[in-house]
Amino acid sequence: MTELGIDVLCCSVGPDLPYLIGYEAMPLERLTMLVVPRDAGAVLVVPRLEAPRVQECPDVFALEPWEETDDPIERVAARVGAAQHVAIGDQTWARFVLALQDAVPKARFSPANDVVGPLRALKDPEEVDRLRRAARAVDEIAVHLRDRPFVGRTEHDVHREIVERLLDAGHERVNFAIVASGPNAASPHHDAGSRVIEVGDVILCDFGGTMEGYCSDITRMYVAGEPTSEIADAYEALAVAQEAAVQAATVGTPCEAVDTVARDVLARAGLAERFVHRTGHGIGMDAHEDPYVVQGNTTPLAVGHAFSVEPGVYVPGRFGLRLEDIVVASSDGPVRLNDAPRDLAAVS
Amino acid sequence: MTELGIDVLCCSVGPDLPYLIGYEAMPLERLTMLVVPRDAGAVLVVPRLEAPRVQECPDVFALEPWEETDDPIERVAARVGAAQHVAIGDQTWARFVLALQDAVPKARFSPANDVVGPLRALKDPEEVDRLRRAARAVDEIAVHLRDRPFVGRTEHDVHREIVERLLDAGHERVNFAIVASGPNAASPHHDAGSRVIEVGDVILCDFGGTMEGYCSDITRMYVAGEPTSEIADAYEALAVAQEAAVQAATVGTPCEAVDTVARDVLARAGLAERFVHRTGHGIGMDAHEDPYVVQGNTTPLAVGHAFSVEPGVYVPGRFGLRLEDIVVASSDGPVRLNDAPRDLAAVS
Repeated sequence: MTELGIDVLCCSVGPDLPYLIGYEAMPLERLTMLVVPRDAGAVLVVPRLEAPRVQECPDVFALEPWEETDDPIERVAARVGAAQHVAIGDQTWARFVLALQDAVPKARFSPANDVVGPLRALKDPEEVDRLRRAARAVDEIAVHLRDRPFVGRTEHDVHREIVERLLDAGHERVNFAIVASGPNAASPHHDAGSRVIEVGDVILCDFGGTMEGYCSDITRMYVAGEPTSEIADAYEALAVAQEAAVQAATVGTPCEAVDTVARDVLARAGLAERFVHRTGHGIGMDAHEDPYVVQGNTTPLAVGHAFSVEPGVYVPGRFGLRLEDIVVASSDGPVRLNDAPRDLAAVS
Repeated sequence: MTELGIDVLCCSVGPDLPYLIGYEAMPLERLTMLVVPRDAGAVLVVPRLEAPRVQECPDVFALEPWEETDDPIERVAARVGAAQHVAIGDQTWARFVLALQDAVPKARFSPANDVVGPLRALKDPEEVDRLRRAARAVDEIAVHLRDRPFVGRTEHDVHREIVERLLDAGHERVNFAIVASGPNAASPHHDAGSRVIEVGDVILCDFGGTMEGYCSDITRMYVAGEPTSEIADAYEALAVAQEAAVQAATVGTPCEAVDTVARDVLARAGLAERFVHRTGHGIGMDAHEDPYVVQGNTTPLAVGHAFSVEPGVYVPGRFGLRLEDIVVASSDGPVRLNDAPRDLAAVS
């Protein structure tokens, strides 16, 4: 905060609060906000009815509950005081940003991610262990799916099975469970729907949740029956691209260079235009966070950066493929946290 | 927009988008924003990889996909143009609010809820039907729980059962499933945890999800064995307060007057200080929305307003009680959408 000239940090919904104080704000219309002045004690402004949820840490922050007929913005503004530069949590709702701007009209606002993002991006060994345990949990699900029937089931049915398995494996929250079959797999963020899986389909399963506060995220591909040579060839190129990008993710390498490695492999296979998204995103308490593995991000990878490597190939109207692992940058080179088999698994 | 002098409406995550165009933005770091100028066609700025999710409605809005290396804020700013007054969706992330303010520094920003909130609050008969179907789905779960064992199970185990039943009943999303037993029920928004339910506990179950785009929300109380007379008396007062508040919810009545009715009944029972939250919240595509049944909200109820009536009694360290139904204001008087029995159900 001193380096960035920030006088007070105001964080609300999303992972900043759990990261900083171990409490997660409910994403509702009653404001919860942690106010951290640079030169004074931190205060958690919280709805009175949610105050019993908070495990108090008097040495870290004070609790300031507000009643149903109070204006929580007034409470926050009083703590912000005459601060000139307020950093506000990235996922804070617009209604609260606007109200706080009105309440402290002389302050300049900037994203709290400038402060919290780089801290959250660097995982310590305990955080890496949590990411690893979450990764192993989804690895087991990915392996289990290899022996499950797909043909004749709806995407939604497989989705539901994955949701159950994520919860059974100890996730406290399911973040997503994409099941995209056949032509639907060409839509990278497809919502599992009523399509019945047929012989010949590829099935893209991309799923993850939050376990002990940290996120899992894996993508594996299944094929019902024999893949066409087009699909088999594209998958082979994809697997090479993913492996090359993982190996490129060494400490000191700019994030965008990892993206370039994956992109170049797919370009050499004639698939440049089929890879329509970035190579990856950071992962931690949030499913997507710094550092992003994307062109334009020149941040060099550092020890403890954790991120996905997930190139994809999408052919509209026909099929889609993606392969994803979570990787941590370490002084011994890139460490994959996922170890489920990476082949295009034949299922029935 | 004309009445409020708003030149352009910019909506992102949350229910505004599904309400206006039937598409829900993914709550992630890639911006999706519907830009609705008062005097021009609407445009949906959407990440290219999510564009295949959007069902296009060329007569309602145009699609403007952005690539991974584009700046979506530039796209939005270009559409906002020289607008002087921008209304921005209430749940839009702070990072995008700040970036858009920087990109169109001369514009004034206000909450889009001023435009969309009153529209969303008034449900048409089709919307009431969806709320009713969602209410019936959770009614069945509440009834089913009356015959289930509680003693010896953890709160989390009951929570998980409710989650499964919500999904089985056709909810596409679980919004919450509070299971709070014994002293934990004194925390109105308790997270189901590892506490094992004991004989003598009250168990507060407050759950809901989203079904066909509309939310369910119900609270019913269970007691393992015989309630103490203190609990039985408090529950009786609570049930009277809830019934009185429901019956008070007639068209033309200010929202705060409904809150007063519940509060007065509990005050006469000596429980004024135990009722630490408002009486209710509007419900629709969002679990909590306008109109709020709270002191200070003088909005008169109108035909089609849908809201919860959920007074509670909380005794820290000992027990908590709440009773909740969804009610719709109609020209024939208040209509309860939930009809599961409202007694304190004895369970084993």
